[in-house]
Amino acid sequence: MARKTGTSTYIMENKPCVLGFASIVGKKEGEGNLAKYFDKIYNDTTLGQKTWEKAESRLVAEAVSVALKKADLNYPDIDIIFSGDLLNQCISSTYGIRETGIPFLGLFGACSTIAESICAASLLIDSGTVQNCVCATSSHFCSAERQFRYPLEYGGQRPQSSQWTVTGSGGLVLGTEEHGICIDKACIGRIVDNGTTDANNMGAAMASAAADTLLRFFSDTGDPPEMYDLIATGDLGFVGSQILKELLAREGLVLGDRYTDCGLLIFDRDRQDVHSGGSGCGCCASVLCSYILNSMSEGKMSNVLVCATGALMSPTSVQQGESIPGIAHAVHLSKK
Amino acid sequence: MARKTGTSTYIMENKPCVLGFASIVGKKEGEGNLAKYFDKIYNDTTLGQKTWEKAESRLVAEAVSVALKKADLNYPDIDIIFSGDLLNQCISSTYGIRETGIPFLGLFGACSTIAESICAASLLIDSGTVQNCVCATSSHFCSAERQFRYPLEYGGQRPQSSQWTVTGSGGLVLGTEEHGICIDKACIGRIVDNGTTDANNMGAAMASAAADTLLRFFSDTGDPPEMYDLIATGDLGFVGSQILKELLAREGLVLGDRYTDCGLLIFDRDRQDVHSGGSGCGCCASVLCSYILNSMSEGKMSNVLVCATGALMSPTSVQQGESIPGIAHAVHLSKK
Repeated sequence: MARKTGTSTYIMENKPCVLGFASIVGKKEGEGNLAKYFDKIYNDTTLGQKTWEKAESRLVAEAVSVALKKADLNYPDIDIIFSGDLLNQCISSTYGIRETGIPFLGLFGACSTIAESICAASLLIDSGTVQNCVCATSSHFCSAERQFRYPLEYGGQRPQSSQWTVTGSGGLVLGTEEHGICIDKACIGRIVDNGTTDANNMGAAMASAAADTLLRFFSDTGDPPEMYDLIATGDLGFVGSQILKELLAREGLVLGDRYTDCGLLIFDRDRQDVHSGGSGCGCCASVLCSYILNSMSEGKMSNVLVCATGALMSPTSVQQGESIPGIAHAVHLSKK
Repeated sequence: MARKTGTSTYIMENKPCVLGFASIVGKKEGEGNLAKYFDKIYNDTTLGQKTWEKAESRLVAEAVSVALKKADLNYPDIDIIFSGDLLNQCISSTYGIRETGIPFLGLFGACSTIAESICAASLLIDSGTVQNCVCATSSHFCSAERQFRYPLEYGGQRPQSSQWTVTGSGGLVLGTEEHGICIDKACIGRIVDNGTTDANNMGAAMASAAADTLLRFFSDTGDPPEMYDLIATGDLGFVGSQILKELLAREGLVLGDRYTDCGLLIFDRDRQDVHSGGSGCGCCASVLCSYILNSMSEGKMSNVLVCATGALMSPTSVQQGESIPGIAHAVHLSKK
């Protein structure tokens, strides 16, 4: 079983392995920086469905099914699926995995959900309680815009600090079988609220939670940041990651060039009109399950720290004048 | 660590114990059948807050704090808090526990969330990975009505199959320390969709999921239903529990008088205008953390099976003509 160290970091004993992974994305993501790493790019982001919500469910269903195929496993081989998303009552996950028959623990951690799911699955696998788990999250630009902001037809102006919700889903299979990439450590986040009330600046709201988790992770483990080939938050975007760097520097933690953000990796901000970068439950998930895991498989990176961030607000809480609490969960992936 | 048996039932090895529990409810619940068991009844269901959502957050905050007090533990003693609710983006949980600083894994399982949280927490505690966890869920009649149905001021008619969302929160502390009541078994549910599309008949939508979980539980464990003093679903209400009994009888499983539903326990349907009974994430949670756990503490019941049920829909999915998928997770609690 995993050993807890410090505030909330767990060192895996048996190191659950990544048995398969897949990312399914939309047109804009397919025009971004990571096109060659995705399993499938849908130029028609309706995926042939009648609504955006149903399209998002299809993304989840495909990410799960392709990841399982690559792991050479079937639905009955999976002990638990952990899944969640941004839609009210997490319907894209629910409807996306409805047909699988896999025992299901639904999660909500906003855009941090992919790391939350990996934390929970790894701890259960590492303890020997379960053998194989699936983790999957999703988002869709069009379903998120109409739920969190304005109807697309309204054509509202977006401030420069706003982020572009990724249309995509990432899914991975974790298991006990030895494989190339495994989960070494997991750090479970706490809610941190720095008082941000601007729903168009999620990066600023989440930066403090990311700082809290990264500072605890490095303090709990004693790992030097230099041992990581990549440290990626997701999805602070440009604005949030600048704030994070300042917050960490104040505490003497300098991550240097190895630090980036999944919201910056997925789109080309010079070429694509995405303002501060990508966001959404599908952002970190699809970057992890494409560029990051593929680069690790190919031996280009050996140690990666993924720290997914979530803004735990709703349009209602923002309208009621509440500030936006953030959370961030971190996982250390290593290549054997 | 817990041993998996059959499809998805886990037998605990070390039996995580209930170290403390609390239920905080509103006026109508305080006028129901279980008044004497609640820790606190708020006759002003705003709890002095400006909005129903903030009132619901207060319910969670109090349930957690009173449960911890009864367990003689403080926030820093808790390894992980598992929490979730019905509101969009689970804001009552988030804002309710924002100040605690406890590492947080957010869940979404609709009204099944309290059992989902106990499943996840028990498995992690039983494996030795963590020591103490808090589980808490909530709902509020007024926040649920305006989000899922109509503004209260509209005064919409409610069909007889509809249920009354409980204003309440239940929280419990689980840990390794030996105590009177412990978690013996947990059965993780699968999504079951029987094609129900009537959002005013959640009981019917969820009954099939409850049947699936209970049939698997009894088949996986070989337990005779007679060994249980109480088998309680939550929250099928009157309509859903009638359907469940029929579904189980078809498969030869007869639970008899020991079977009831948390939605029937909490209100007096003859006296209170609640139609099919109670519902909401706070229903099963507040019944468990009042009547059930108190009766077990007092030695009136030794073995209880709680099977919390959730309807995994949203107003959007219903408007789009989707059927309503259900899920049910079950936990066996025993008194030493």
